[in-house]
Amino acid sequence: MSVLIVGSTALDSIKTPYKENPRLLGGSASHAAVAASFFAPVMLVGIVRRHGIDLKGLQVARGKTFHWAGEYELNMNNRRTLATELGVFETFTPNLPETYRQAPFVLLANIAPALQHHVLDQVRRPRFVIADTMDLWLNIALDDLLKLLRRIDALVLNDSEARQLTKEDNTITAAKKIHRLGPKYVIVKKGEHGALLSAPGGMFISSAYPLNRVVDPTGAGDSFVGGLIGYLAASKGSLEANLKQGMIYGSVVASFCCEGFGLKRTTRVTRDAIEERVSQLGRMVRY
Amino acid sequence: MSVLIVGSTALDSIKTPYKENPRLLGGSASHAAVAASFFAPVMLVGIVRRHGIDLKGLQVARGKTFHWAGEYELNMNNRRTLATELGVFETFTPNLPETYRQAPFVLLANIAPALQHHVLDQVRRPRFVIADTMDLWLNIALDDLLKLLRRIDALVLNDSEARQLTKEDNTITAAKKIHRLGPKYVIVKKGEHGALLSAPGGMFISSAYPLNRVVDPTGAGDSFVGGLIGYLAASKGSLEANLKQGMIYGSVVASFCCEGFGLKRTTRVTRDAIEERVSQLGRMVRY
Repeated sequence: MSVLIVGSTALDSIKTPYKENPRLLGGSASHAAVAASFFAPVMLVGIVRRHGIDLKGLQVARGKTFHWAGEYELNMNNRRTLATELGVFETFTPNLPETYRQAPFVLLANIAPALQHHVLDQVRRPRFVIADTMDLWLNIALDDLLKLLRRIDALVLNDSEARQLTKEDNTITAAKKIHRLGPKYVIVKKGEHGALLSAPGGMFISSAYPLNRVVDPTGAGDSFVGGLIGYLAASKGSLEANLKQGMIYGSVVASFCCEGFGLKRTTRVTRDAIEERVSQLGRMVRY
Repeated sequence: MSVLIVGSTALDSIKTPYKENPRLLGGSASHAAVAASFFAPVMLVGIVRRHGIDLKGLQVARGKTFHWAGEYELNMNNRRTLATELGVFETFTPNLPETYRQAPFVLLANIAPALQHHVLDQVRRPRFVIADTMDLWLNIALDDLLKLLRRIDALVLNDSEARQLTKEDNTITAAKKIHRLGPKYVIVKKGEHGALLSAPGGMFISSAYPLNRVVDPTGAGDSFVGGLIGYLAASKGSLEANLKQGMIYGSVVASFCCEGFGLKRTTRVTRDAIEERVSQLGRMVRY
């Protein structure tokens, strides 16, 4: 089944301790769509990229493209946002083509909650809706985000955002508090330390695929959630079991993302290479 | 089979964001011995504690007991050492009783590398030797530690120490570099994020048991390695498989350790309670 993805398409200026890359193609929708496309057909509300992705929802606007600039510390886990220019996204209110409105799986990738609402308003009867978010929206659009939480099945956010949203220092307690805000499934991303799923059936802990060398982690979270929903859309059977397996696939796609600047590495990955890492990761956590 | 443990016995003054506890019984040997005692007979070179632990190796010395004072940040992961007083440990050169010298499993818990050497010199033909260490010894006794690495089977250290020892920012690469210094098995502890084993058969990633509330993480690393070697000493079959399973048991004992100040919680745990959490953790990582 197909996946509808809305999110940012952006130019990222990325500075790591090793290299600086100004204005690479990036954004949450770009990364998530490429990641999801390994598993299921993707309908993107966003930008052009040749990767088997349907582009009817692309709106060409006048004005500046969304621009994010960030700098990573040596451990590649901590990053500072140097600049964010919302550009055309401040006035972006896409009108979805009819086929998009029928999408059974919807990923509201990281973008302004108002835009996530706007897209969700147009989708008919989605089976499963995942939203991602970031600290920026917690700071400047919290009300919109809280309203969104009551409309989605799953929220994906990173551990520091979970703490900020709930004012709770313990990640596990924070995840449990988020259920009370709406989502039945809460996924807390912890970068190189993996991710946690809090679900009706209990907790699930997924490990990140261990990398010897991280070139650029930008887009890893988007790749994770893109891979996850792509896998979900392609799978039958128990939703919760598929979510767990999907987190493993998402982690693997994210690992490829980290191995190149922007989308350089992810766009060259094959499904076989993904399956190989999924097997390896399985062997690394089995006992 | 039995486990010989040498390490510090200490008074810990612990300050968390929630509470301050001056001069609690602690130290690496105390925590590790209690943890190991759930699984196998323990011979302790250290201090008195009623927990089915053989105390022939206890040396009563005049002078100050080792004293460590530390403060934890809100996330309970970062800690600052406020004071370290080596006290009697500066001149502690225990003479092991004959039964101790026959121990098949040896844990050189966190203490000065010179003392770890001194104990290892007296042990006849151990089957498996694990050493733990800390940043203090990397700073003030690096040569002794490097010599020790060539004499042990497994090194356990935390991620920041692995980076410090190898001058390598990536944890996976750091672990691999440590093999070249001697140990066939390298275990990198990552606190609430679990631990990594790098072994001839590949990598293994173990998750920490997720806790809603951490009261005091002091001794968690010692409990982890104590539980691990206790489990190893009690198990038959493949060493590497037992190491993996032992890391799970160690993580669970460490989780109990974090739920009380000092040894308060760990000393009240039952083997059944440990087995229950081991099962729960197994369900949380299976997919």
